[in-house]
Amino acid sequence: MDRIVGYKLRRAQLSVFQDFLRTFAGMNLRPAEFSVLALIAAHPGRKQTEIAEQLGIKRANFVALMDDLERRGLAERRKGATDRRSHSLHLTEEGIRFVDMMAAVWREHEERMIARLGGEEERDRLIELLDRLTGTPDESTD
Amino acid sequence: MDRIVGYKLRRAQLSVFQDFLRTFAGMNLRPAEFSVLALIAAHPGRKQTEIAEQLGIKRANFVALMDDLERRGLAERRKGATDRRSHSLHLTEEGIRFVDMMAAVWREHEERMIARLGGEEERDRLIELLDRLTGTPDESTD
Repeated sequence: MDRIVGYKLRRAQLSVFQDFLRTFAGMNLRPAEFSVLALIAAHPGRKQTEIAEQLGIKRANFVALMDDLERRGLAERRKGATDRRSHSLHLTEEGIRFVDMMAAVWREHEERMIARLGGEEERDRLIELLDRLTGTPDESTD
Repeated sequence: MDRIVGYKLRRAQLSVFQDFLRTFAGMNLRPAEFSVLALIAAHPGRKQTEIAEQLGIKRANFVALMDDLERRGLAERRKGATDRRSHSLHLTEEGIRFVDMMAAVWREHEERMIARLGGEEERDRLIELLDRLTGTPDESTD
């Protein structure tokens, strides 16, 4: 199993997520919730469907995740003014404070991952290779 | 989210697993089953606990997975001669034929992943970085 890309990827991903979950145990935050909150913070008012698609989260899972963030008082859906079927996503006041804390705690975790890799150059190299595998449209490999 | 290691890892892992699942749809084989069969083929008679640990699969999940492989007639558990509580794992005759086919089909998938990365050197570089993240004992980074 030493050279198998999918296997090695999965092991590394589980290891990084384990560190993430330990780091965020006190804040009761899972990686998908982190990503959604970070994206809403960066793009308040963006449509639910766009954020789900950008993160590659299936519709049903995304709805459940947003229900939970609403229940916790961190984020909210607002109906579109023109298209009432489309929801735009926003942080609440409490959500904004939560995301500030989250960013500080996250930095700790990320520094540990960069240290494991051997520095920021290695991190950049890894991300470049991962983007090739994912085939992100903004990272052409030719 | 452009520089976040865990996020990028997860996206790449999902993308590689999607290709794997598409490739193996006809054989009804999931990545964890592939790994277990490949390891039993490489080390017939190895203990259940060792294989589960090597793959980082939790005990309950591993038992369910082996139940399924037994039901499909591909692998079997045998009680240890000295320690009757420990099970050793073996492929059946049918399992041996299945693993031969599986290896041929897998090569297709893996070649596609190596092509996405840009070649075998890039694959090796990626795996070296992933091993640093996982902290595998046989891959010291100093």
